[in-house]
Amino acid sequence: MTLQLFELVGTDAGRPFSPYCWRTRMALAHKGLDHGSIPWRFTEKAVIAPHGSDKVPVLLHVDKAVADSWKIATYLEDAFPDCPSLFGGEGGRAAMKMINSWGDIAIVGGIFPLIVADIPSHLGPPDADYFRTSREARLGRKLEEAAAERDKAVVAFRRALEPLRMTLRAQPFLGGAAPNYADYIVFGGFQWARVVSSFRLLAEDDPIYAWREKLLDAFDGLARKSPGFAV
Amino acid sequence: MTLQLFELVGTDAGRPFSPYCWRTRMALAHKGLDHGSIPWRFTEKAVIAPHGSDKVPVLLHVDKAVADSWKIATYLEDAFPDCPSLFGGEGGRAAMKMINSWGDIAIVGGIFPLIVADIPSHLGPPDADYFRTSREARLGRKLEEAAAERDKAVVAFRRALEPLRMTLRAQPFLGGAAPNYADYIVFGGFQWARVVSSFRLLAEDDPIYAWREKLLDAFDGLARKSPGFAV
Repeated sequence: MTLQLFELVGTDAGRPFSPYCWRTRMALAHKGLDHGSIPWRFTEKAVIAPHGSDKVPVLLHVDKAVADSWKIATYLEDAFPDCPSLFGGEGGRAAMKMINSWGDIAIVGGIFPLIVADIPSHLGPPDADYFRTSREARLGRKLEEAAAERDKAVVAFRRALEPLRMTLRAQPFLGGAAPNYADYIVFGGFQWARVVSSFRLLAEDDPIYAWREKLLDAFDGLARKSPGFAV
Repeated sequence: MTLQLFELVGTDAGRPFSPYCWRTRMALAHKGLDHGSIPWRFTEKAVIAPHGSDKVPVLLHVDKAVADSWKIATYLEDAFPDCPSLFGGEGGRAAMKMINSWGDIAIVGGIFPLIVADIPSHLGPPDADYFRTSREARLGRKLEEAAAERDKAVVAFRRALEPLRMTLRAQPFLGGAAPNYADYIVFGGFQWARVVSSFRLLAEDDPIYAWREKLLDAFDGLARKSPGFAV
């Protein structure tokens, strides 16, 4: 296998949950590229340090290592130009950098406080300790305090999705008639939530809900078949 | 002149201010298309009704009328395929629909309460009355009440620009190395503000400020030369 992906997992090595790794998983499936998966845990920094990163995803391709989901997407697009395009041309590549930024802030940043308290139960002791300490520092409060407010916070989260909702009322996918990397950027965050938390992010009558269903079914149900909660 | 653009103005027919008309102005300049401008005011609905719209921009091209800035952009891209591309391919076109939605909400919607009270002074009596009544209904309060809070509201507005800021730290324009329609979507809102209001939206050390300067200079200073405030 010439492609190997380091993916974040917890106690269940077959339950990858990082939103960024899911962007890459979907991108690899879109390109039709077989790849191996190397389970990686928060405290295994030494394992990926030789590849120049302290975070996953890290993609190994023959003798190269590429870290960071955006860099991996651009790498795949350039290294496999004959496979289905992730960006749909140079205009798409540039515009998706903006969608990537929006996805990092509105999606990953927006979902984070809503599900963060559910993550430690998926982690072994050293990872759970690391996660709690680093994330409580980021939040400036206990994970459980963030969770206690999530029924209220989800209302603001749903409101912040309005640009996505408006777009999906006009076209089936961010990629247009079919999904592309713009969709995987956003979907990665929802899949992260689905894998670690039973908390309901979306109302069933939300156009984003229907869009997420289609992406759960994409690539022969790649995301739906991965262990997670029915939300 | 085969292209004619209805553009929103007030008492000064040479001071177009609509954020959506500015998207179209910049798009026409990008395509290198000469066009006439037909000044249009809020209460002149009857003038554009025959073209199937009650809002501008409306673009007339020979025997066709196209309303709505997004539809005009896609029309121009398809009708003038040999002129410089607005979207950079089909992936760009699809992804920019999302940037268009974000621009409508975060940029136009975010700027609106900050500058709305400055607009009536640019309008003749019937337009000023129409504007105040319709916009106070939308705001749910007096224009002056929105303005009174703008020193506080601008902080939240600047924070909401973080996806744009993050992108412009990674590449010179939303379009990549050079501006394209993604940039004009966002810039249109800033130009609207510049034309009608002296209120300062951006700090000078904000990467968005430097990006806006470059777009003010684009196309031989098209936007900078149009009457407005130095902000």
